[in-house]
Amino acid sequence: MSSVIPDGYERLLIEPFYGSLGTIRPDNTVQVSPMWFLYDGDTIRFTHTTKRAKYRNLQANPSMSLAVFDPEEEYSYIEVRGRLLEVIPDPTGAFYVVLGKRYGNPDQKPPRDSLDRVILVMSIEHTAHQ
Amino acid sequence: MSSVIPDGYERLLIEPFYGSLGTIRPDNTVQVSPMWFLYDGDTIRFTHTTKRAKYRNLQANPSMSLAVFDPEEEYSYIEVRGRLLEVIPDPTGAFYVVLGKRYGNPDQKPPRDSLDRVILVMSIEHTAHQ
Repeated sequence: MSSVIPDGYERLLIEPFYGSLGTIRPDNTVQVSPMWFLYDGDTIRFTHTTKRAKYRNLQANPSMSLAVFDPEEEYSYIEVRGRLLEVIPDPTGAFYVVLGKRYGNPDQKPPRDSLDRVILVMSIEHTAHQ
Repeated sequence: MSSVIPDGYERLLIEPFYGSLGTIRPDNTVQVSPMWFLYDGDTIRFTHTTKRAKYRNLQANPSMSLAVFDPEEEYSYIEVRGRLLEVIPDPTGAFYVVLGKRYGNPDQKPPRDSLDRVILVMSIEHTAHQ
């Protein structure tokens, strides 16, 4: 497991809580949206498509920040900052299915836009927490 | 009430859900953190201090984005984008108390850093929702 994550906070990345992902738009304004994610101990992975705003944002500026809190205990949160390391094609939507199951749908099917699906791989460089 | 907010989504701004606020750091990386907020029908207001990173970020780039979802119904969310309109001193911490009560603590007292407290007033310029 990553030594960057402060003691006691890894739970927020392991439990299936939604994260809020920030990216920077080409006009230098900020975008935040709730996202499914998977923490693999080293990177954070998201399902996305090549047709959406966040993908275009990340082409211009690779900075990413993910904030996660437990809705039952909102005072405590972690923010993970990093950047886009890699974009992996996912044309069968397999990773979307992995995330759908992680977030509570055992019968998750691949999405209709599978051909455009990609996995965004984010580095873990800094954290903030409370 | 603001005509910018799509029908059926104002609830996400009225109920005491935490928001995730994105700002842009002076080095053009993104920061996201969970925040209390108050929607007054026209602007969104946060309690903050003049000593923290978000305050410094906003001096360099006024862009702000707030994402809010209902933890019981996470598929549905609203993102509100705008910018810092005004910083109002709050040296008694009165607005902090207003937000503490809104978020479930009827006995909320002013914080120890009240002298540095400010109200950040954010405009509502664009929204995205799902």
